[in-house]
Amino acid sequence: MEELDAFAYSEQLAAGAPVLIPAGSIEQHGPHMPLHVDSLLSRTIAGETARRIGAVVSAPISYGYKSQQRSGGGNHLPGTTSLTGDLVTAIAKTLVLEFVRQGVKQIGFINGHFENYQFLYEGADLALKELANAGHDNIRIMLLSYWDFVDDETISKLYPHGFTGWDLEHGGVLETSLMLHLFPEQVDMTKVEDSPPAELPNYDVLPVRPELTPASGCLSSAVEATADKGRILLETASAGMAAAIKSQFEHTPSSP
Amino acid sequence: MEELDAFAYSEQLAAGAPVLIPAGSIEQHGPHMPLHVDSLLSRTIAGETARRIGAVVSAPISYGYKSQQRSGGGNHLPGTTSLTGDLVTAIAKTLVLEFVRQGVKQIGFINGHFENYQFLYEGADLALKELANAGHDNIRIMLLSYWDFVDDETISKLYPHGFTGWDLEHGGVLETSLMLHLFPEQVDMTKVEDSPPAELPNYDVLPVRPELTPASGCLSSAVEATADKGRILLETASAGMAAAIKSQFEHTPSSP
Amino acid sequence: MEELDAFAYSEQLAAGAPVLIPAGSIEQHGPHMPLHVDSLLSRTIAGETARRIGAVVSAPISYGYKSQQRSGGGNHLPGTTSLTGDLVTAIAKTLVLEFVRQGVKQIGFINGHFENYQFLYEGADLALKELANAGHDNIRIMLLSYWDFVDDETISKLYPHGFTGWDLEHGGVLETSLMLHLFPEQVDMTKVEDSPPAELPNYDVLPVRPELTPASGCLSSAVEATADKGRILLETASAGMAAAIKSQFEHTPSSP
Amino acid sequence: MEELDAFAYSEQLAAGAPVLIPAGSIEQHGPHMPLHVDSLLSRTIAGETARRIGAVVSAPISYGYKSQQRSGGGNHLPGTTSLTGDLVTAIAKTLVLEFVRQGVKQIGFINGHFENYQFLYEGADLALKELANAGHDNIRIMLLSYWDFVDDETISKLYPHGFTGWDLEHGGVLETSLMLHLFPEQVDMTKVEDSPPAELPNYDVLPVRPELTPASGCLSSAVEATADKGRILLETASAGMAAAIKSQFEHTPSSP
Amino acid sequence: MEELDAFAYSEQLAAGAPVLIPAGSIEQHGPHMPLHVDSLLSRTIAGETARRIGAVVSAPISYGYKSQQRSGGGNHLPGTTSLTGDLVTAIAKTLVLEFVRQGVKQIGFINGHFENYQFLYEGADLALKELANAGHDNIRIMLLSYWDFVDDETISKLYPHGFTGWDLEHGGVLETSLMLHLFPEQVDMTKVEDSPPAELPNYDVLPVRPELTPASGCLSSAVEATADKGRILLETASAGMAAAIKSQFEHTPSSP
Amino acid sequence: MEELDAFAYSEQLAAGAPVLIPAGSIEQHGPHMPLHVDSLLSRTIAGETARRIGAVVSAPISYGYKSQQRSGGGNHLPGTTSLTGDLVTAIAKTLVLEFVRQGVKQIGFINGHFENYQFLYEGADLALKELANAGHDNIRIMLLSYWDFVDDETISKLYPHGFTGWDLEHGGVLETSLMLHLFPEQVDMTKVEDSPPAELPNYDVLPVRPELTPASGCLSSAVEATADKGRILLETASAGMAAAIKSQFEHTPSSP
Repeated sequence: MEELDAFAYSEQLAAGAPVLIPAGSIEQHGPHMPLHVDSLLSRTIAGETARRIGAVVSAPISYGYKSQQRSGGGNHLPGTTSLTGDLVTAIAKTLVLEFVRQGVKQIGFINGHFENYQFLYEGADLALKELANAGHDNIRIMLLSYWDFVDDETISKLYPHGFTGWDLEHGGVLETSLMLHLFPEQVDMTKVEDSPPAELPNYDVLPVRPELTPASGCLSSAVEATADKGRILLETASAGMAAAIKSQFEHTPSSP
Repeated sequence: MEELDAFAYSEQLAAGAPVLIPAGSIEQHGPHMPLHVDSLLSRTIAGETARRIGAVVSAPISYGYKSQQRSGGGNHLPGTTSLTGDLVTAIAKTLVLEFVRQGVKQIGFINGHFENYQFLYEGADLALKELANAGHDNIRIMLLSYWDFVDDETISKLYPHGFTGWDLEHGGVLETSLMLHLFPEQVDMTKVEDSPPAELPNYDVLPVRPELTPASGCLSSAVEATADKGRILLETASAGMAAAIKSQFEHTPSSP
Repeated sequence: MEELDAFAYSEQLAAGAPVLIPAGSIEQHGPHMPLHVDSLLSRTIAGETARRIGAVVSAPISYGYKSQQRSGGGNHLPGTTSLTGDLVTAIAKTLVLEFVRQGVKQIGFINGHFENYQFLYEGADLALKELANAGHDNIRIMLLSYWDFVDDETISKLYPHGFTGWDLEHGGVLETSLMLHLFPEQVDMTKVEDSPPAELPNYDVLPVRPELTPASGCLSSAVEATADKGRILLETASAGMAAAIKSQFEHTPSSP
Repeated sequence: MEELDAFAYSEQLAAGAPVLIPAGSIEQHGPHMPLHVDSLLSRTIAGETARRIGAVVSAPISYGYKSQQRSGGGNHLPGTTSLTGDLVTAIAKTLVLEFVRQGVKQIGFINGHFENYQFLYEGADLALKELANAGHDNIRIMLLSYWDFVDDETISKLYPHGFTGWDLEHGGVLETSLMLHLFPEQVDMTKVEDSPPAELPNYDVLPVRPELTPASGCLSSAVEATADKGRILLETASAGMAAAIKSQFEHTPSSP
Repeated sequence: MEELDAFAYSEQLAAGAPVLIPAGSIEQHGPHMPLHVDSLLSRTIAGETARRIGAVVSAPISYGYKSQQRSGGGNHLPGTTSLTGDLVTAIAKTLVLEFVRQGVKQIGFINGHFENYQFLYEGADLALKELANAGHDNIRIMLLSYWDFVDDETISKLYPHGFTGWDLEHGGVLETSLMLHLFPEQVDMTKVEDSPPAELPNYDVLPVRPELTPASGCLSSAVEATADKGRILLETASAGMAAAIKSQFEHTPSSP
Repeated sequence: MEELDAFAYSEQLAAGAPVLIPAGSIEQHGPHMPLHVDSLLSRTIAGETARRIGAVVSAPISYGYKSQQRSGGGNHLPGTTSLTGDLVTAIAKTLVLEFVRQGVKQIGFINGHFENYQFLYEGADLALKELANAGHDNIRIMLLSYWDFVDDETISKLYPHGFTGWDLEHGGVLETSLMLHLFPEQVDMTKVEDSPPAELPNYDVLPVRPELTPASGCLSSAVEATADKGRILLETASAGMAAAIKSQFEHTPSSP
């Protein structure tokens, strides 16, 4: 959408195109990847998904909710620059209201930062309530985290030595493989450490106890990441999300 | 705490007792259980945990965040009466500030409603930031969901036919067994339906599609719930939480 | 309501039952009573009122607005754990919106904590404005403080030595008598001091000057409290409120 | 203060002058008085009080909280133009913070609109909390409603036929007498109706039932108002408030 | 409006009179003028404008947004007492909603404090959005800063030695001349300094660097201010605003 | 910053590098340019400025305040997707707090969207107040709009036929030239209309009167835009901003 001019954009909306809103973060992703991994990946995977269903991708929510230790290492790490929960919610709500004002009826949030989810959900729900109060009763919103569309078969193929859960994938094989496939020039595999997954407790302590996060900031090692795995992940996630969106949205313009 | 008079309460705080804040909800829990299951269980399990570590249990956060379809059936169901996310956050933040004003240095949230977690976390984090700005640098907060302390061994014992995840446990074996053990007069097992677990998609759609939630409002069947399982669950969860809290809080007054 | 299951609750709403929302506080009430007196009494008196008019009582607003020195001794006292005004307002507003969403058309706040009133009023007013904007024009809300329904005749009977006003009744004859009647096991009359009513100025000073509040935290002595007075107060207040509500609400289901 | 230049104002603050903040409203006051009675009277009485203790009077809070039926006739009446509670609170808080930033240490709110009180109190309390967090521990704030300083003796003199309470004095003898004394050109006594005091219930109903408020908008008749009574009221209230403030504020500059 | 009684006010509204809301500030205006210049002038010029088009002038927004160094000298100067931006916005929004509730359909903000503008605009826009959601689609709001209606010809007449821009007119010829014409008793021309206009950078630095603002607090000298210039300015601004308002508002009642 | 890994970023901060935060918008920019012109230009010019002074550029504030008719054509135009003022303020405040938490002491906002300015200013001011309360007294923030650094000489060179003011430059020569120099592949000069500048009144009317904005959405014609002018503008603006920042910030690391 950002690179469209206003008139081309209007035409797409007039044709009934849904809008996909990528939501990322500015968060440390280890010594081998840049800070904007979540924004970049959510945007790119949203683009790939949109291509399959004729949707428009909006400018991303670049800054996300605070990194939490059990899924992102913690908000205390250098470079991690986060918004409060009410801000993430308010931005999500406002974008929904803005797109509906422009005539959009179907909106999907494509989440690329684990911690964003509940706050995006709340923003979508508050927007729908306000819209319903104003008489809009035909708006539909979806919320999708791209990793939820990586099926068990793909997981067992890509993680032959066992999978430790999406929460520990911060800076690990998933994100690094996708970056290697899509933006290899932004990854430096020589800096990846080969260390066991972080062992984090099944509760949160605040203030964060920094010693629980590995020095690299990654919760699992990316040493087995490859561009080829990234290609498979991109394909699986975007195809899965495209199918899900098509199943829920009335009729999308047309898929190529 | 509620049933203490102010002077007895002060003595406990002076002795360094941590405060545990139960967080529940008013949410439908099927035809066989009352609306306040989450508040009641979080309060009772917090009490059992407090007994083991000499903590004080505060009045519960009775109303919680909206029920979400993938973990509670959805906020559209009758009786489900919820707060917005920013309210849950603000209440959690305010209670932390109030207890710290009274001299408390160690606070634990005992969560009994899946959807509350991120908003409680944000409230705790915002409170700590405000307290740090005001020069309090020795406050520690923990956030615990009681089901996270049911270990794999117990799970396999209690769910011999397979376990479908805590998110689908809404109104299922976990909560019903605990209620049967603790408040059997509030459970009517004759109303429990023997149906397969709900099949919910790996994304959210808003407004909720009501047909995806079983008519009972329960996401899995409680037919195999027993008071004995409840006793085991209570023991496992409160012992686990007590151990976790003791490991993180400087020194709790004394455990019996 | 809390102890109803969702289906029984729905039936009551479908029959047109009003919802009564008790609003209390967690506030010191002297050495002879527990911290949750206001929540407990508002809930119980609401229950007694509801019984007379076929209403449903919701889970209480447990935490209330700050204790003010001229009516509650002050928020600095140990155990007093309060919310800010905007939170009390937001909770009241949200609960109204939630009950209206469930089909309720008549809602009463039963206030048991002097300081809550203006913030509950504002919450009710804001909710009505939002509902009116959304096209709901048939919602009616009442706000009642239970002591306002103790008539002059009862007052002169219960306070033979003179009545000093409801604001000074904090921890005094009114609340203690009600507790003696309803929850005698939570009152320790041996700890009641026989002291004259507090003399507080006709203005507020902040920060509070602690020396103006009696050491007991009670603004008047409960030494003349009796369970029998409590019975009369409960009867008078709940009958008065029931009559008031029946006079204002279109038609309540039917009283047993 | 408004009519001082910045340099003269600074000199007064440097001498330790307290600041008095008048709080009024824009609210109908019957057919015989203008809409800004509360703002005008709070400002003038604050001025008279300030003269006695060497204080500075700030620009008034012109718009106040909503008129409530039991004390002001109701917010539905023409001309009544009100702020929400959180706005009154935020304005009060912000003014305190601003004056403290300028070096003021002692601040009094002089309230002239019944309904403002709790929201001003909350604003003062929130400001003090923020100031205490920032290390200001020597700020003192008072909140005074001028009618609370009219003693029983004066009341019995001015209301020979009996006094019905300050809440019903809206547009009645108190305010009209003060206006007759201070701003006679803004009062038209020929429009005063001689009617009995309004009979309002001991609870609130929302939306307001307009038929409960007299057509004049006044809750009691001003027919016995006189300029002479106004003079006595002004003298009594300002002398009482001056004495109260002197008793609480460390040392005021000097009274003429 | 403030000096109207409620019934006279209602008649004017019933006749379709627009409401003009003056927005000023409490801000230092040099050693020669009082702190309330902006509120006083916005109110008076609004009054003069209203007289020409049959509008009603509301009570002013007395406190405005923070003084900024490049247009008002800076918020650090003594006497400058300001609100945050969200408060100015919320007040503007609330007043619009209140007047529309009373039946007003055409509202103009008459701004007298440079820094207010964006926050008033936002308040007006938010109010319109809320009103549109509630079905009001015929409300029109204008925002006018009075100096924008001083045309180039008048400027060159009044500033024969060159004009440095409205932002530097703080405490200068414009405001001083108007005050000399309207409120000469509040101006002390003997205290005016004859100094060159302030030289302020084309960016902002925070915290403000106080040394950039002249000691007088005025950004340009008022030495050439005269009552006669004030008369011309008042005439030009109010005539210009009246014409603009007549051109945009459907039909104003009638101008005398 | 976004493309740095967390460790490289930390090193730059440790060396004392200031952080520059670009602030743009998603706003229609005529038929010849994409929607993200303001975000893209603020980011690129910030990058060029940062290069000169050794600063780090953060991820941009992509969505900005509403487009206003007098400077951006109006928020009603297709593709224009905006945040409310309080959100822009809150994002600006939060980013300042986050960077200070990371050890940054000098922060500059590089604004590329006219309407953002006051809301960014408020965010910076609120952040500084909170930081000062917490004991940080050595933080300095600058706010710069890049066009303010195009000097009069350059203007007269680039606009030989006269310059109509930065507010009308929306979609005109300034932005188009910069885009032609920096991102020529995103500009389609064949779609530029040769029309006179928009004539907009010296006040605002809301709701916007769409007929006042040219159909192209541009307030002045870009027909005379060239890549060479873009090069000069980029050089002038970034050199000017770099000089301004160096003059205000204590000592920047080192410029290449």
